[in-house]
Amino acid sequence: MNNFTYYNPTKIEFGKEKENNIGQYLEQSGIKKVLLVYGGGSIKQNGLYEKIITSLNKNNIKFEELSGVVSNPLLSKVNEGIKIAKKSNVEAILGVGGGSVADSAKAIAAGAKYDGDVWDFFINKAIITQALPVFTVMTLSATASEMNGNSVIINSDTKQKYSIGSVLVNPVISVINPELMKTVSPEYLAYSAVDVISHCIEAYFTASVHPKFNSRIVESIIKTVMQTTETLLENPNDYDARAEFAWAAIQGLNGLTTAGTEGGIFPNHMIEHSLSALFNVPHGAGLAVVIPAWMKWYKAQNIPQFKRFSKEIFYSEDENEGIDKLEKWFCKIGAPVTFKEINIPRESIEAIAINANETANIWGIGEIYPTKSIIEILEKA
Amino acid sequence: MNNFTYYNPTKIEFGKEKENNIGQYLEQSGIKKVLLVYGGGSIKQNGLYEKIITSLNKNNIKFEELSGVVSNPLLSKVNEGIKIAKKSNVEAILGVGGGSVADSAKAIAAGAKYDGDVWDFFINKAIITQALPVFTVMTLSATASEMNGNSVIINSDTKQKYSIGSVLVNPVISVINPELMKTVSPEYLAYSAVDVISHCIEAYFTASVHPKFNSRIVESIIKTVMQTTETLLENPNDYDARAEFAWAAIQGLNGLTTAGTEGGIFPNHMIEHSLSALFNVPHGAGLAVVIPAWMKWYKAQNIPQFKRFSKEIFYSEDENEGIDKLEKWFCKIGAPVTFKEINIPRESIEAIAINANETANIWGIGEIYPTKSIIEILEKA
Repeated sequence: MNNFTYYNPTKIEFGKEKENNIGQYLEQSGIKKVLLVYGGGSIKQNGLYEKIITSLNKNNIKFEELSGVVSNPLLSKVNEGIKIAKKSNVEAILGVGGGSVADSAKAIAAGAKYDGDVWDFFINKAIITQALPVFTVMTLSATASEMNGNSVIINSDTKQKYSIGSVLVNPVISVINPELMKTVSPEYLAYSAVDVISHCIEAYFTASVHPKFNSRIVESIIKTVMQTTETLLENPNDYDARAEFAWAAIQGLNGLTTAGTEGGIFPNHMIEHSLSALFNVPHGAGLAVVIPAWMKWYKAQNIPQFKRFSKEIFYSEDENEGIDKLEKWFCKIGAPVTFKEINIPRESIEAIAINANETANIWGIGEIYPTKSIIEILEKA
Repeated sequence: MNNFTYYNPTKIEFGKEKENNIGQYLEQSGIKKVLLVYGGGSIKQNGLYEKIITSLNKNNIKFEELSGVVSNPLLSKVNEGIKIAKKSNVEAILGVGGGSVADSAKAIAAGAKYDGDVWDFFINKAIITQALPVFTVMTLSATASEMNGNSVIINSDTKQKYSIGSVLVNPVISVINPELMKTVSPEYLAYSAVDVISHCIEAYFTASVHPKFNSRIVESIIKTVMQTTETLLENPNDYDARAEFAWAAIQGLNGLTTAGTEGGIFPNHMIEHSLSALFNVPHGAGLAVVIPAWMKWYKAQNIPQFKRFSKEIFYSEDENEGIDKLEKWFCKIGAPVTFKEINIPRESIEAIAINANETANIWGIGEIYPTKSIIEILEKA
């Protein structure tokens, strides 16, 4: 087991009706004015916006608004938010939505306390040293952004989907009410499940040091996500399944699964980010295509762990069956597993690989994933 | 799944040689003077004391000292610490030792900021509203005190072993270097394993709401602790086993296993606290005696979970085998499973039961565990 620091100071307020307390949470944290960040307006249709505003007003929290955050969130919107935050002297950023909104809120929080271009943080040109406090009310569970310091943003000008990571943008408080997630479409539920599984298996398969305890935690999360996804596809109103899914998703990328590991990298995310950046594919859909292809390509490098995966998740002694059955499970829940299904033509493979290799270089794994290898992987999809 | 708040702001600094940074961690936290709390002096023999002092001096951290904390820590020692803390205006409490030292450090931290008798917190006469920051360097893994807000102290005058729980006494930073634990005796390793398992199974069996995800996490911890204990009994120098044991032990009582559960209570701890209070039995040894007895007595109230336990931990379909095999495993690792082995005479059972029922009343579960029921349980041991 490797040396590590584990520090996750986010407070999770989990459960029914907790969103009604958001004003109180902000007030107790000494916040008087926030920038309210949200997406395309579904929160206005389903009544959540009204609840949030009522709670803010009740606790005398003033607010500015930034709407229109899209899935695969854009730098242009982040910059818009930073401008408002700076001009209006907001004291915190409150994201209400899914992972894209949370990620945007974090980037705005960091950018609002920085004189330069916020993109500097994403291309390793600057390090985050301060940020406005971030709060979230989540309407989708997948990214675990609600309990980590990660933010992934797309720069449309440069066609780059890059990330930052800093505990300074860990949400101070995240509200998770599984009831707010029951309107998530079956497609997005499937994409979310794939996303959580991907967070779990990246280090599980790639880390050079990966204690059994971490493997067991990963497997606990995967089993829970698979079981609850199937339940929810049959009955979207099953509160307990929705709640377990949400809490397991958080554990998937809040630092627990990777504590003490070494050498774990995120090749599937690296490649998928290029699909999203170039073709605006939903993150989970892109991952569903990449993962089985990558697993087939990578398997030989870590047979014991692929054997373990097959056995623990699919009760099979054959290391190939784990890959095969996971791919079939993706199909079963309605996630795409081929480029054809997400309408990406074969001739785009090289462009994707070149783009992904640029991310690999930023992540310091360009030598492990040269363009040639990424092409090999993509050809399996 | 029940509504819950999850908040654990303790930073864990885990790994080799991290104790040498303790002065730096304190300095970075703005601390200039600490009360150094430790046990019987083994840290002076093994060089740890010297390392700590060197690190404190290097970072200009002044310190007072309180030594002599015993396993089953005493209120009298806590009061001694509070006196020093108040008189010397220390800014933080630094515990260097095992769970007893950490628990004492927490009680001192709370008492140092309170004008009344610190025991008020333990008997629900007062609530902790402020405390000095707590830091720990751990030399034993079992209680998870290093990452929670719990403290269990014995009042020798009243023969009560009672507890407090407040995030205000969660350690700010805990240093866990598994190498510091390699001198733990086989007996105490066994007791520690039993303690961790007990933390895991209390709510696992008693909670009226216990999501499958929580069960899976519990089982991951138990499997890890059992496997690494066996490894360590054969080879105390196996660093990785020691490290996995330590990290799993922390997860056993840092809030993760109980988040979202409802109605989980700690009857085994409740009863064991009376064994420790009356007979100064090591906590883990007392638990090893109580647990199999309690399981046999309680089993009928939650057959499905006992079946699950048998299957997941011991690969058996019979719910009784789980209990039987756990008891045998306790024997195998050298933990006592009868009163005889811990030299408690049969005629003491009633006194223990009366004492335990008093704890039950403090915990609000006196009706579920009347003296009569506790006697029934104890007679099975």
